[in-house]
Amino acid sequence: MAQVDVYRDTYARHVSDERSGEAVRVAGWVDRRRDHGAIIFIDLRDASGIVQAVIDPEEFPEAHKLKLEYVVSLHGVVRARPEGTQNAEMPTGMVEIAVDELTVLSASETLPFMLDDRVDVDERTRLEYRFLDLRTPRMAANLRARSAAFRAMREVLDGLGFMDVDTPTLIRSTPEGARDVLVPSRLRKGSFYALPQSPQLFKQLLMVAGVDRYYQIARCYRDEDFRSDRQLEFIQLDLEGAFWGREEVFETLEQVISAVVERVRGMKVPTPFRRLTYSDVMDRYGTDKPDLRFGMEIHDISSLVGGSAFDVFASTVAGGGVVRGINVGAVGLSRSAMDALTDRARALGAKGLMSLVVEENGLRSSIAKFLSDGEQRSIIEALDGTPGDLLLLVADTSKLAGSVLGQLRLELGQPKDHEELAFLWVIDFPVFDVNDDGSLSPAHHPFTAPIDVDEMRTSPETAISKSYDLVLNGSELGSGSVRIHDPIVQQQVFDILGIGPEDAERRFGWFVKGLRFGTPPHAGFAVGIDRLLAILQGERSIREVIPFPKTQTGTDPMSGSPTPVDDEQLQELGIALRPEVKAGD
Amino acid sequence: MAQVDVYRDTYARHVSDERSGEAVRVAGWVDRRRDHGAIIFIDLRDASGIVQAVIDPEEFPEAHKLKLEYVVSLHGVVRARPEGTQNAEMPTGMVEIAVDELTVLSASETLPFMLDDRVDVDERTRLEYRFLDLRTPRMAANLRARSAAFRAMREVLDGLGFMDVDTPTLIRSTPEGARDVLVPSRLRKGSFYALPQSPQLFKQLLMVAGVDRYYQIARCYRDEDFRSDRQLEFIQLDLEGAFWGREEVFETLEQVISAVVERVRGMKVPTPFRRLTYSDVMDRYGTDKPDLRFGMEIHDISSLVGGSAFDVFASTVAGGGVVRGINVGAVGLSRSAMDALTDRARALGAKGLMSLVVEENGLRSSIAKFLSDGEQRSIIEALDGTPGDLLLLVADTSKLAGSVLGQLRLELGQPKDHEELAFLWVIDFPVFDVNDDGSLSPAHHPFTAPIDVDEMRTSPETAISKSYDLVLNGSELGSGSVRIHDPIVQQQVFDILGIGPEDAERRFGWFVKGLRFGTPPHAGFAVGIDRLLAILQGERSIREVIPFPKTQTGTDPMSGSPTPVDDEQLQELGIALRPEVKAGD
Repeated sequence: MAQVDVYRDTYARHVSDERSGEAVRVAGWVDRRRDHGAIIFIDLRDASGIVQAVIDPEEFPEAHKLKLEYVVSLHGVVRARPEGTQNAEMPTGMVEIAVDELTVLSASETLPFMLDDRVDVDERTRLEYRFLDLRTPRMAANLRARSAAFRAMREVLDGLGFMDVDTPTLIRSTPEGARDVLVPSRLRKGSFYALPQSPQLFKQLLMVAGVDRYYQIARCYRDEDFRSDRQLEFIQLDLEGAFWGREEVFETLEQVISAVVERVRGMKVPTPFRRLTYSDVMDRYGTDKPDLRFGMEIHDISSLVGGSAFDVFASTVAGGGVVRGINVGAVGLSRSAMDALTDRARALGAKGLMSLVVEENGLRSSIAKFLSDGEQRSIIEALDGTPGDLLLLVADTSKLAGSVLGQLRLELGQPKDHEELAFLWVIDFPVFDVNDDGSLSPAHHPFTAPIDVDEMRTSPETAISKSYDLVLNGSELGSGSVRIHDPIVQQQVFDILGIGPEDAERRFGWFVKGLRFGTPPHAGFAVGIDRLLAILQGERSIREVIPFPKTQTGTDPMSGSPTPVDDEQLQELGIALRPEVKAGD
Repeated sequence: MAQVDVYRDTYARHVSDERSGEAVRVAGWVDRRRDHGAIIFIDLRDASGIVQAVIDPEEFPEAHKLKLEYVVSLHGVVRARPEGTQNAEMPTGMVEIAVDELTVLSASETLPFMLDDRVDVDERTRLEYRFLDLRTPRMAANLRARSAAFRAMREVLDGLGFMDVDTPTLIRSTPEGARDVLVPSRLRKGSFYALPQSPQLFKQLLMVAGVDRYYQIARCYRDEDFRSDRQLEFIQLDLEGAFWGREEVFETLEQVISAVVERVRGMKVPTPFRRLTYSDVMDRYGTDKPDLRFGMEIHDISSLVGGSAFDVFASTVAGGGVVRGINVGAVGLSRSAMDALTDRARALGAKGLMSLVVEENGLRSSIAKFLSDGEQRSIIEALDGTPGDLLLLVADTSKLAGSVLGQLRLELGQPKDHEELAFLWVIDFPVFDVNDDGSLSPAHHPFTAPIDVDEMRTSPETAISKSYDLVLNGSELGSGSVRIHDPIVQQQVFDILGIGPEDAERRFGWFVKGLRFGTPPHAGFAVGIDRLLAILQGERSIREVIPFPKTQTGTDPMSGSPTPVDDEQLQELGIALRPEVKAGD
């Protein structure tokens, strides 16, 4: 390939009207090529945009051989395009470059797929050729959005006096929460580091260390099974403040998130964000991450129908269950669509689904005959029904009725795109989740402060914590809490979780020791950046906003990783494959 | 511990003269405490600084129990200190807070060491209590400098339109360079990821992908033996540009480094930085990372003494060796100091060291009698000697004479601190290093472009590459190069390295494939941030500027990591400890 001293002196996008008559040098990829024999048009693409170049093949016969995605450097004079060939929709659409120097910098083989957002390519192929996939306008925009989001976050936090502190990533394994990614140590054979699931303990120790405001765009790792849209490694905006409470966290994050949305989407987000308690969202939306872009709230009508002649209602309520419903609106579903809804409710775990259509004088339904006129009227009123509306009722345990109706609500009402952004703080989570066997586990993590320590000890099942989640359009963006800063309270939480002093010492001793030397009250949060960006960019999967993601099975089709390694390398680490495992299974 | 709604409304440092008469609330640590019985003085420290508070123990008897590093929130009125008790050296030294509310937020046990820069604590204890160590003024300043450096780097690069792209950290293992840190895959048992030694291949693929300017403050990993001041994980400022050559890299980095130095040290760095070729620095300083803060350059006097009657000189030069020397200046060393120097030179591999003192009429030395008057004069002239100067000569191979004199030069001349900053670009490195067995290995890495492809093929041993290093005060801060963007040249380099097409395909195929679809010329660099900060902060070890470093054996005395893990966890990963390894050895 030919050599050239300076590859370009301007970006394609800047070759505008005003530069007519000027000589410019641009460099980039052949995005389109029209060879008319006596004249060749090239759309030259660089990171900034596209500009048209006109080449005389008499002067540059090699131009006949240019193919898509060849890399060239062009010199020439900017001139107005001939009347009728202008393209007002392109920033450079009024001009073209009359090429007087052409240097081919690099050739391209035939592409495995067209670099066009309109062409549907299977994801595995896209990931195998990620270096080409990222050239498409959609993916290039996603990369730019990601970088812009980083920058917006940092500008806000730097401006607020936060310190960016990089915490270690080869840390002590903690048998807690999700599965750690383990790293064998070579210098201490038989021992392992873990990659961090989050910088939680380190950022709390930074508070102990006297750092006032901490943030980090932190790489985190979770070795989960990839049921959902997760990655083995992901990044989060991690922050923490000393002498902080919840309000300071909210105020800071609202500034950060607003700045990101403005930078990435060019729109203002109203602040402060809405706030709802955990108990409220569970009742009204059947989920702790409700999508508030639409109504269709869940209403509890147990008190209205508990004394009904309809046995399903009466016996459910008598047995401690609930009757709840949503108003789907005037959707006019066919019988088969209704049957499908009932099947779906059953698949979600409900014993059944009752559908009723509001009419002028009451309800139309197979169960209407069991309901009194008064009951019908009060149901219609509770669900704010107007004629034509479809009401769906579930009679079940509170938990099941909520989760089933919450899921049906999403499937029937959730917008397909993310044009609108509905941010929500969910507050007042319980301290503990009650497991099916009656035992308790931390609802957030065991370092979350309870609102009332005495209440936590006497009624741990119902105690409320100082934790909170940020929700956007039905997705959890992240969570945080006011932390425990008193080592005595910390041990009380461990006790309630069944972690005795010795066990606590073994597992968390190194961290709790830090709390004993003057720990400021502190609070913090972590935002999942991949998820936020996917929503802001209107992408279904976080893989679309991650530069080089892995598949759902944790592989990288581009490099073929993970790969087998030589036994010699394993020997150096003091480990071996188990006999039942073949290298690279 | 007591509860309080708002912990503070101002920072300690902001409690100034002008606020006399105002009520303020501050929160922080008890830095000093003087209990006079009827009155108690507290120096309250927060992240901003220190302010004095005065407590009346009649009102607050609990103040008698306050100990060092207790965390308190104080409310009170700012007032001038009584005449004679002011401290003009403290920003808040003219005032004190007359406390009318005292809340103890957190207690502290007795400290394992005093939080005072003047107290010498052994490093292991400091690392075990890193959360306390970081409270010392020195370490707090190092943390702030680190964060300020990140910010300065990002501001410059964001301003220049660079994109921050986070490349993956669970990547394919590459059997090249230093030892990879391996991570067993659970979903594909028997296979392993590697943690990146650098984002090299990914950043080059970002150039292929059409990213114009890339940067990242990247976490990197090298499983080396910790002879020198290295860490298992470290961070580097990684950057790369498309359609770039060396000059663009230099210009960009000079802006970045200047901004960092200005932010961290408050001083201007002259740009452009000096440039010297590899061949030049090896001749003049005997190292590829010379400290230019002082002279004492190496001079070759082979041609002056090759015909000498002194057999050591004559036979060395006749045998293809060299005679080189440095002028140490008028140091007036004792005989025993001179003997120690000779021992040192022998320990460094020299056969001997000749010392000569310049006198009015010639040289004083045990070898002077073998040298003619003319030879003595020409040696003095070559080494710019004036009476009293000590000259040290080594007669040996070019390589050994250079390395021994280069090392002696450092030991005799290098400043102990880093008040002055001498930046240097070392350019024109060879493409390949010639190993002792005559084989070649890449001087930088195998993706470095040669200046002349034909020369590289015909004379690979002497071919010069487009690579460069940045050196500061005798330390290598980082290196970079113009990369190979032509897959044919890439294979030629592999061929010269003895990596045939099949082997290259197996090891680097996934990357080289990327070069075949239109690769722009590109160049880049990586700066070791830990090293840069250590020098700017005048620290001897990079561990002093890393928030939570590991020891030289890769352990963390604070958390005790790495640790043994349950065999169950290993089973899930398809691995086992080798029989000869005991967990946690």
